[in-house]
Amino acid sequence: MTPALIRPALITCDWGTSSLRAYLMAADGQVLATSASGQGIMALDGVTFPEVLTAIAGGWARDHGPLPVLLSGMVGSRQGWVEAPYARCPAGLPDLAAALAEVPAQPGFGRIAIVPGVLKDDDSAPDVIRGEEVEVLGALARLGVAEGLFVLPGTHSKWVRVEAGRIATSATYMTGEVFAALKGHTILGRMMEEGAFSAEGFRRGVEAAAELEGPGALLGRLFSLRALGLTGRLAGADSADMLSGLLIGAELRDASAGEPFTLVANPALAARYAEAANILGLPHARAPEGCGPAGQHAVAKAAGFI
Amino acid sequence: MTPALIRPALITCDWGTSSLRAYLMAADGQVLATSASGQGIMALDGVTFPEVLTAIAGGWARDHGPLPVLLSGMVGSRQGWVEAPYARCPAGLPDLAAALAEVPAQPGFGRIAIVPGVLKDDDSAPDVIRGEEVEVLGALARLGVAEGLFVLPGTHSKWVRVEAGRIATSATYMTGEVFAALKGHTILGRMMEEGAFSAEGFRRGVEAAAELEGPGALLGRLFSLRALGLTGRLAGADSADMLSGLLIGAELRDASAGEPFTLVANPALAARYAEAANILGLPHARAPEGCGPAGQHAVAKAAGFI
Repeated sequence: MTPALIRPALITCDWGTSSLRAYLMAADGQVLATSASGQGIMALDGVTFPEVLTAIAGGWARDHGPLPVLLSGMVGSRQGWVEAPYARCPAGLPDLAAALAEVPAQPGFGRIAIVPGVLKDDDSAPDVIRGEEVEVLGALARLGVAEGLFVLPGTHSKWVRVEAGRIATSATYMTGEVFAALKGHTILGRMMEEGAFSAEGFRRGVEAAAELEGPGALLGRLFSLRALGLTGRLAGADSADMLSGLLIGAELRDASAGEPFTLVANPALAARYAEAANILGLPHARAPEGCGPAGQHAVAKAAGFI
Repeated sequence: MTPALIRPALITCDWGTSSLRAYLMAADGQVLATSASGQGIMALDGVTFPEVLTAIAGGWARDHGPLPVLLSGMVGSRQGWVEAPYARCPAGLPDLAAALAEVPAQPGFGRIAIVPGVLKDDDSAPDVIRGEEVEVLGALARLGVAEGLFVLPGTHSKWVRVEAGRIATSATYMTGEVFAALKGHTILGRMMEEGAFSAEGFRRGVEAAAELEGPGALLGRLFSLRALGLTGRLAGADSADMLSGLLIGAELRDASAGEPFTLVANPALAARYAEAANILGLPHARAPEGCGPAGQHAVAKAAGFI
């Protein structure tokens, strides 16, 4: 059986802030082709949303007819193509499918709609995710489970708890963005030398995180990296990854609290988080690749696209 | 008795990164005159250290003869005039006096020396202070005590524990610098509107800090400010001070752990920290003003300057 014999039935696209990735899929979710672009919603540079869609998926539409298109990610935010208001926790496939935001018809394409993000509507500590809900639902499909604690690390690390197949709650750790701000805009960055990943520095950071006690301890521990450098105990080449290990270790301890979790991430980031979890003795697993398109396919099916 | 009848005996100067402040003192520590400049050690703009000293205190030397000069603060760091290697904890007046770094003689002045900073020499979490040791010793003199927990808030908040008149240990919380980095260089800053101090925002931040549990909770709570804004629960005019309250509250909880502490700070910053401590129910007191020159006088006396 060659791809030519399988009929394309759906186009999906994970359209984020800085990039997007589109998939041509069969009705059963098999990915037949992929396409990527750097034109995320904050990197359009004067090009319109319809023009980007045509550039990335217009060829598929020409070859295979007016296929339906399902979009997810920041393309549904207030700054996106069409705002897709958040669905509220708990939110599963039927909830997301019922809350799609329809996009005006575009020549050559079928129905176009955007998956909503998910809101944890809490008065004191609310949270939002947008795009990650699709990946988590895809992980459920790929793993054949209906519950669990999932983490999607990155600039904003998203922790998502699933119960009975629905996203029950979420929490965001600004770990990646805090790392960049501390490295780029505090005294800690001054001692840091660019270079290859320092496993030794990372390990020391995670071990420092393991010793933290209390909610303000992190603020107090940051400066010790500077003092370690001043006293000749920390090399410049190790210090950025020590900071990374300290922050990731603190995140993992707090967010997982010892409960097993599943990493949904690209291999490099998954490896870093898995290493920190190993050092801390925290039980975890890695999700298979392809959770994003698997989740888009599941939503598309629930919404009657295919 | 007018100042003219009291003989000046000493010049002291707190010389920091961005500014300096000099004092003309009598032998008993009475401050007869003060002088300030923006030429901190990182703001010299091509002017030399001797030129700045002459500009700020040369008139006193001309009028009153070759007075001795005691300097403290970052002027003794590696980037300063002469490096004054750190004294080690525990360090009291005799230890600092014995470790002064001598500055080459300058025309018109007597002996010139720099007070060393203090190093907590710990393999895993070392700490350093430079300048604050003088203020803390001055607070002891002003309060007539020989022990206690002192905090000198700021860009880097320094917590100093004194036992038997000597600095026993210290810890640095990068609260002010982390606030600036998060406000200026993360998504949190986008929603913040400049304006007057928001007591309501600050209170909400401290109350959020009161609810934090665990060492990574702060990383997780930061994003909730963004989500509060997205869901219409936090005004832009309140959000910067809510972040400030969250960070200061976390610092206070961790660093004081409920033990009474004394604030050594300018009135505005002392008021902010005292307000947070009140909300958290943490016992505290404010040191009287003038701890800096009082500490310099005490060191100068211990070192035989007067």
